[in-house]
Amino acid sequence: MTSQGGTRQPKYQRIADALRTAIQAGEYGPGDRLPGENDLMATYEVARMTARQALGVLQNEGLAEARKGAGVFVRAFKPLRRRGIERLAREQWGAGRSIWSEESEERELVVDQIDVREEEADGRVCDALDVPAGTRVWARSRRFVLDGKPVLFALSHLPSDIVADSAVTQVDTGPGGTYARLAELGFAPVHFREEIRSRMPSADEAERLSLAMGTPVIHIVRTAFAQGGRVVEVNEMTLDSASYVLEYDFDA
Amino acid sequence: MTSQGGTRQPKYQRIADALRTAIQAGEYGPGDRLPGENDLMATYEVARMTARQALGVLQNEGLAEARKGAGVFVRAFKPLRRRGIERLAREQWGAGRSIWSEESEERELVVDQIDVREEEADGRVCDALDVPAGTRVWARSRRFVLDGKPVLFALSHLPSDIVADSAVTQVDTGPGGTYARLAELGFAPVHFREEIRSRMPSADEAERLSLAMGTPVIHIVRTAFAQGGRVVEVNEMTLDSASYVLEYDFDA
Repeated sequence: MTSQGGTRQPKYQRIADALRTAIQAGEYGPGDRLPGENDLMATYEVARMTARQALGVLQNEGLAEARKGAGVFVRAFKPLRRRGIERLAREQWGAGRSIWSEESEERELVVDQIDVREEEADGRVCDALDVPAGTRVWARSRRFVLDGKPVLFALSHLPSDIVADSAVTQVDTGPGGTYARLAELGFAPVHFREEIRSRMPSADEAERLSLAMGTPVIHIVRTAFAQGGRVVEVNEMTLDSASYVLEYDFDA
Repeated sequence: MTSQGGTRQPKYQRIADALRTAIQAGEYGPGDRLPGENDLMATYEVARMTARQALGVLQNEGLAEARKGAGVFVRAFKPLRRRGIERLAREQWGAGRSIWSEESEERELVVDQIDVREEEADGRVCDALDVPAGTRVWARSRRFVLDGKPVLFALSHLPSDIVADSAVTQVDTGPGGTYARLAELGFAPVHFREEIRSRMPSADEAERLSLAMGTPVIHIVRTAFAQGGRVVEVNEMTLDSASYVLEYDFDA
C-alpha cells in the first residue's frame, strides 16, 4: 500500500482510520469480524506490532472488541433508549407499571445483587437529601441485567422517617415500585432532576458491568422532590455507556 | 507495607485503590500533586514499573493527569453545568440572549474554528432532518473554548429552503442566535429532543478538545421541531466529559 512519507500520522493510526471509515460506511456491520493481524500485515505491509496497535485503537475507542481466540469484531451496539422524562411520568408508576417496563421491551430483564438496608447516611448522601448529619436512611442497591448483559447498577437512598413502615424497605416494593409507595405515603414525587456525567470506570465498576475495554460509564444522579420541595429520594445510577442512549424530550 | 500474598489483586491495582481512596477522602484535592514514582517505590517497596502502572490506572480513569516533567496531579474538575431544558426556553433566545450566556458565567468564552457553508446533505443528515436525499442544507460548525480549554464542538444543519436568505447563513447570526432567526422566519422551535451517548474519542476528537488520557466524550444530538412537527435544525455536539455536568429538570 501507500506512501513512505509525507504525513505526520503514525502508520497504525492511518490503518485504524481506514478501518474506522469502513465501519462507518457500513462495510463492516455490527458483529462482523475485522481483518486480523495477518491480514493487515499483508495488506499494509507492516509489522505485527503495527497491525496490533491499529486494532487496539479501535478497541480503545469502543468501536470494536476482541473475543478470545476469535479475533476483533465490530461492536454490536443495540442500545436501550432511556426516555428520561416520559419514563418518570406519573401515569407510568401511578398505573402500577415499572419504570423499566417500557425500555426493556421484550428483552429478558434480571435484577440481581439486591441489597436493602437501613443505615446512617454519610455526608454526601445527607447533602443530596438535604437532611442533617447522621439521619437514618434506607439504602436500596441493585443491578439490572438485560439479555445476560449487566447494563446498570443503582444505589438509592430514602429518608427513614418517610419510608420506615412501607414496602420500600422490602426487596419487592410492589406494583409501580418505590414512587407508587411514596405516593401512598403522601410524598408523591412531583419533580425530578437528573445530573449526568461520563467518565472511565474503576476496575470494580468495569467488573460489575462486564465492560469491554475502552468503554466509559455514564453516571446519573436523580433527585426526586415532593410537593413543597422536600427531597424524597436520591438515586445514583452507573450505566454501561455502550448499552444506552439517553433521550430527553421537552418543549421550548 | 503489607502482605506478600492472600489477595488476587495485582500490586499496582492495590496502590491505585489506596490513592483513589485518598483522593475521594479529600487528602489530595483538585490540582494537588500525587506521590511520584520514587515515593511509591519507597512507600510500597515496589519496582518503578509497578509504581508507574498504579499512576497509569488513575490517569486511565480520568481521576489524575500527567503534566510533562512535573508529575501526576489530581484533575481539577470544575465542570460547566449545562441545564438542558431551561437553557433552551423561549425566554432565553427570545430575549436576544445566547444559549451559552448562562452556563459560561463570568468565564472567558472564545468561539473558533467557525465554518458556515451550504452543501448537499448526506444520508445521515437527511434522515435526521427528515428530508429527501440531496436536499440543500446550511452547515454551521464551531468550537467553544472556555478559559483557554476547548470544551465542545458542534455541527448543525438547517434546511436551505428555510434559512437561505437569513443571518443563519452568516458567521454572526445576531442577537438570540439561530433560534431567534428561525422564529422571525416563522419556524420558531417549539419542541426539542436531545439524545445523549458517551464513548471514547477518536484521535481527531481528542486533539480538537485537548483531552487528557482516559477522558470520554459526551455526544449530544439535538433535534429542534417547529409547530406542526417539521424538523428545523439538527445539532451534533461533542463535549469534553471532564468539563461538563448535564442537568435535566422536569415534572412528574
